[in-house]
Amino acid sequence: MALIVHKYGGTSMGSTERIRQVAKRVAKWARAGHQMVVVPSAMSGETNRLLGLAKELSPEGSSAELNRELDLIAATGEQVSVGLLAIALQAEGMQAVSYAGWQVPIKTDSSFTKARIESIDDQRVRADLAAGKVVIITGFQGIDPNGHVTTLGRGGSDTSAVAVAAAMKAAECLIYTDVDGVYTTDPRIVSDARRLHTISFEEMLEMASLGSKVLQIRSVEFAGKYRVPLRVLSSFTPWDIDIEEEAKSGTLITFEEDVKMEQAVVSGIAFNRDEAKVSLLGVPDKPGIAFQILGPVADANIDVDVIIQNVSHDGRTDFSFTVHRNDYQRTMELLKTRVAVDTGAASVVGDKNICKVSIVGIGMRSHVGVASKMFRSLSEEGINIQMITTSEIKTSVVIDEKYMELAVRALHKAFELDQPNS
Amino acid sequence: MALIVHKYGGTSMGSTERIRQVAKRVAKWARAGHQMVVVPSAMSGETNRLLGLAKELSPEGSSAELNRELDLIAATGEQVSVGLLAIALQAEGMQAVSYAGWQVPIKTDSSFTKARIESIDDQRVRADLAAGKVVIITGFQGIDPNGHVTTLGRGGSDTSAVAVAAAMKAAECLIYTDVDGVYTTDPRIVSDARRLHTISFEEMLEMASLGSKVLQIRSVEFAGKYRVPLRVLSSFTPWDIDIEEEAKSGTLITFEEDVKMEQAVVSGIAFNRDEAKVSLLGVPDKPGIAFQILGPVADANIDVDVIIQNVSHDGRTDFSFTVHRNDYQRTMELLKTRVAVDTGAASVVGDKNICKVSIVGIGMRSHVGVASKMFRSLSEEGINIQMITTSEIKTSVVIDEKYMELAVRALHKAFELDQPNS
Repeated sequence: MALIVHKYGGTSMGSTERIRQVAKRVAKWARAGHQMVVVPSAMSGETNRLLGLAKELSPEGSSAELNRELDLIAATGEQVSVGLLAIALQAEGMQAVSYAGWQVPIKTDSSFTKARIESIDDQRVRADLAAGKVVIITGFQGIDPNGHVTTLGRGGSDTSAVAVAAAMKAAECLIYTDVDGVYTTDPRIVSDARRLHTISFEEMLEMASLGSKVLQIRSVEFAGKYRVPLRVLSSFTPWDIDIEEEAKSGTLITFEEDVKMEQAVVSGIAFNRDEAKVSLLGVPDKPGIAFQILGPVADANIDVDVIIQNVSHDGRTDFSFTVHRNDYQRTMELLKTRVAVDTGAASVVGDKNICKVSIVGIGMRSHVGVASKMFRSLSEEGINIQMITTSEIKTSVVIDEKYMELAVRALHKAFELDQPNS
Repeated sequence: MALIVHKYGGTSMGSTERIRQVAKRVAKWARAGHQMVVVPSAMSGETNRLLGLAKELSPEGSSAELNRELDLIAATGEQVSVGLLAIALQAEGMQAVSYAGWQVPIKTDSSFTKARIESIDDQRVRADLAAGKVVIITGFQGIDPNGHVTTLGRGGSDTSAVAVAAAMKAAECLIYTDVDGVYTTDPRIVSDARRLHTISFEEMLEMASLGSKVLQIRSVEFAGKYRVPLRVLSSFTPWDIDIEEEAKSGTLITFEEDVKMEQAVVSGIAFNRDEAKVSLLGVPDKPGIAFQILGPVADANIDVDVIIQNVSHDGRTDFSFTVHRNDYQRTMELLKTRVAVDTGAASVVGDKNICKVSIVGIGMRSHVGVASKMFRSLSEEGINIQMITTSEIKTSVVIDEKYMELAVRALHKAFELDQPNS
């Protein structure tokens, strides 16, 4: 008998019929002798509906007062979900009780709309589990030190589930989703992409942050910090699938670097076409220049991803970085009107039609020549590399957007990701 | 400057456009120097939508566990409303903050789906008012001693508003609704029914309990207990109507029995066609017979309204009472299969096609002949009276349903309710 956390996404909770399926699956796990905690998302579309109503009324701009109200409103989506799932479980003959985040309580800081979990009190939940109840907890939300409802931001229910699993020292946290695991790359682009049976926590972190949208990145960070075994698996299998089979399905995100994993040099290909590239050309190369450029960008609340500064010549250098495509216009204006003037840059250029492609693999640490193999492979396809960044377990390149699928397929093949693990 | 509570019903909160109108109206009151607390209902249709989802999943029967979940689900309707109204007020340039019942907190007992308010902590709200904020509080809900969300039952938002007004010692509680006040009777039946400028608390209690559905009866009881001045007025007047005019509109439910009110013998005609009549004929007239009949009825959770026992002859009597029409079949079965046998009644008869018509007036206390005037008036219309009950300030008759409109019109005319107060 183990304590298990299940997390179900909005699609899995999308209708009363779907909720009934979730209840039957959870009941199966509980009847197999497990102590069950379930963290469901809001019914699909509900959070958008609620925030849409708020948007129709919103004053211009953003404020803590406004965000506080948005959180109180958005949090209701999950509150409805947990209540409905508890009722569905009761209809299955199970004892079940649901809690909103503030009732557990799940304590967060006061950053409305993007709060961070600070602690979870497990007393109430443990008492219910000991009494034989299935406990259902709202994802996405908590309560701040002043008693205000907070939300964790989009995808926050993954983080809630992992945080609950960490607080309860759960044996495993199962994230039920609309894909059946983590793949070597997106199967819509590479038809022979393979599902990974296991992936290391660090690789998953890189995959998640690079646009492989299976799991919210903060939930992976959380899992890493507290070493919560995390499994991504499909919510579309029949609920009455054999439980032993189900428990081994999907992809396990693990913290043990076993031999087999060391042997796989590259585990997956990630990609992202949400970014745009901007460059300041001919910037005087002097101390503090990076801060002079990126300080105003950060002040404007624009997130920067890749940053590259080339070696200087004649006391001048080129400084490039990428931002989210939605922030492209704002960034260009900011650079042209203020930053270029302040820094004495010669010119500002930008490009929205780029993408980032990355190879990710914990084995890269101990294998030389992985990056050069990547560059050769792209070169053979005639793809020009515009920017390069590397870390211990990944190498990313920025290329023309139109070559994205081609690059992903070429790399998938070059690193033999289509071959089953031996 | 006074502390004022506004309550808005589901229709007033029915769309973002309607919510914007509510915000403008509240802002007008706040700008006139009043400290404002607002208690809105859920957007119209929302509570039904939520409970409909729950019903699709509900196990058979009813339990505290199920009701607990229903309350957690249903409470979200008002939570969304308060957040949206706060945002709309912020858009009007006001400072505004909203609270769910548990945040205030509004403390209730643990009777899920029909909880009763036990106390309201006004500290948080007072601090916000002192800081110049409009405070918006969810209607319909609270929190029980174990930290569970409770709801007060249908129409509970009226009660919440009055309870908040009582706790805050508000100068007045304004209930904005889709009618513009309390009428001498239903204007759909008597075209020259008049709006009352004032009505006494006790008369309002009788009017509310007799089917005049302007206000939830518990809210009137609450207002009476704590002597909260209560005004029913229209939410359909333009929001920018002159505030002095608005403050005098609608109907004021008052506790002062001034001369003018004493002079109006009958204030209104109430009616109700939701009931059915059942009679046990030839019941042995012995001590305890009423309990022997009504005990099993109460055990079956059937509410009884009018109860009449005639004088006995030959040691036998007839015992009649009315129940809600929905409970008619159950009641008849119960009486035939059990109660008639146990009591030795000669027979059981019933009639669904009845209605109850009542005259209500605090002046009846000091005026003789009011009831006989009522009976004469009905007799002149050829209407047979089946049952009669009286209290200090009302007289009710049960008659054939088909005569209801005729009876109401006749009584409205007989008591000169179509004449303006002098």
